Amino acid sequence: MIRGTTKLIAHLGYPTESFKAPMIYNPYFASRAIDAVVVPMGCKAPEYPAFLKLLFKLTNIHGALITMPHKVSTIALLDEVLTTAQVAGACNAVRLGADGQLIGDMFDGEGFVRGVLRKGRVVKDARALVVGCGGVGSAIAASLAKAGVGQLTVFDPDARAMDALASRLRTHYPRLSLVAGSADPSGQDIVANATPLGMKPGDPLPVDVSRLDPGAFVGEVVMAQEITPFLEAARARGCAYQIGMDMLFEQIPAYLDFFGFPTTTPDELRRLAQFGH
Amino acid sequence: MIRGTTKLIAHLGYPTESFKAPMIYNPYFASRAIDAVVVPMGCKAPEYPAFLKLLFKLTNIHGALITMPHKVSTIALLDEVLTTAQVAGACNAVRLGADGQLIGDMFDGEGFVRGVLRKGRVVKDARALVVGCGGVGSAIAASLAKAGVGQLTVFDPDARAMDALASRLRTHYPRLSLVAGSADPSGQDIVANATPLGMKPGDPLPVDVSRLDPGAFVGEVVMAQEITPFLEAARARGCAYQIGMDMLFEQIPAYLDFFGFPTTTPDELRRLAQFGH
Repeated sequence: MIRGTTKLIAHLGYPTESFKAPMIYNPYFASRAIDAVVVPMGCKAPEYPAFLKLLFKLTNIHGALITMPHKVSTIALLDEVLTTAQVAGACNAVRLGADGQLIGDMFDGEGFVRGVLRKGRVVKDARALVVGCGGVGSAIAASLAKAGVGQLTVFDPDARAMDALASRLRTHYPRLSLVAGSADPSGQDIVANATPLGMKPGDPLPVDVSRLDPGAFVGEVVMAQEITPFLEAARARGCAYQIGMDMLFEQIPAYLDFFGFPTTTPDELRRLAQFGH
Repeated sequence: MIRGTTKLIAHLGYPTESFKAPMIYNPYFASRAIDAVVVPMGCKAPEYPAFLKLLFKLTNIHGALITMPHKVSTIALLDEVLTTAQVAGACNAVRLGADGQLIGDMFDGEGFVRGVLRKGRVVKDARALVVGCGGVGSAIAASLAKAGVGQLTVFDPDARAMDALASRLRTHYPRLSLVAGSADPSGQDIVANATPLGMKPGDPLPVDVSRLDPGAFVGEVVMAQEITPFLEAARARGCAYQIGMDMLFEQIPAYLDFFGFPTTTPDELRRLAQFGH
């Protein structure tokens, strides 16, 4: 029930039609009588910097969830960029600090790491490969580094994106064993597909699955279907895995915490979510 | 259920704590499966012009409800000001036109007039007195003029506000018999209190109730209590009346129509409203 005291969390991006966050957060807020609401706001890039600034002057604004195409451009608009967002070079959550400052962090990768841990895998000292160094791949790499992986390999056919991520990782995690430029999954404990491959029928697989260790854990960011061709092939080799939707639900408790709300489990959020199907 | 396709109606004003519109519109939208939501946004005056402009660039914005302190300043920010808003000198609803233009109208007075009509009174050719020429009084005067009153008297101790309203009324309704400067209710068929008198204990009455015709109909804008001292005194003389909340619910079908939504009766809206008491 929205009222005059309700804390506003803007969900900023464009287009908005496929937004899922309102149907996850709002039923949870209702179930706990938390006086807050997530509201989609379709904002295009030219208006975004000015709109974000004025939005955070509203007297009932509490925070914002940031999605495409604004995750990267938000960084330059903040007063304080937390480490994971710095390494990722992108931000997907902004909250108002005590003195009106805008504080941003990045939780896509946190969702990936929490999912791996929940499936019983160890992340600390593991060898991990992230294929795709765009926004979500950078976020996963940043969170794997934060979680203490022993070796991190990043790959992107776009060498500039890959090198920029590697450089940010070296700056913030100078002691991390970092490899940039190989997509070979052989010998990796954790392999993340952070490319869009799998969204369209006929896409090639993101890695050579025949070189995947059967004991490896693979994770997917694509949500177009639950079991993408990559997960299908990895599963056929005996790999454990997590689907894109797991990553989504795993990260939400982290946002709740960031925004200062009582938090809960991904399972409760999943039970309450109303996707209308 | 808010989703990515939901049409956004911003409720703009400051402070927001006492806003009632979300608890009236949103349960109605839910009951009819209308994919729209009213969201309070606490906007202060310095940010308002820029925020209004950017808000209406959002791809899912549908309209705005405008309240204190922005009803007057909105007029200068619109592309098209409908007649009642021009006469009132204030606007409390804005919608997006087909070509992106901002179109504004004013419905406070419409609610007053619809309430009088619903109580079985005739407005056309009646003699009406409006005490208070601020935003709401001007709106009531504008709507009474539109509804065809035979004579309209307006009064405000602030002569500048009163004369400005009288001038706008003369411009738009040159054939209206208009009196400015008397608060004498004697001989009036309809008397509206559009002053804040009655909000605080010990306030004087807005008119000399001893001169009120027992056959007159009186209406109140104050909502601090259902039966204000003015209504109490008028009722004691035998007058029929409407309370401030009647005016609120009577105007909502007019907004629904303005925004292009399926409309309904004030009674259904009242039944669905969730004020949380």
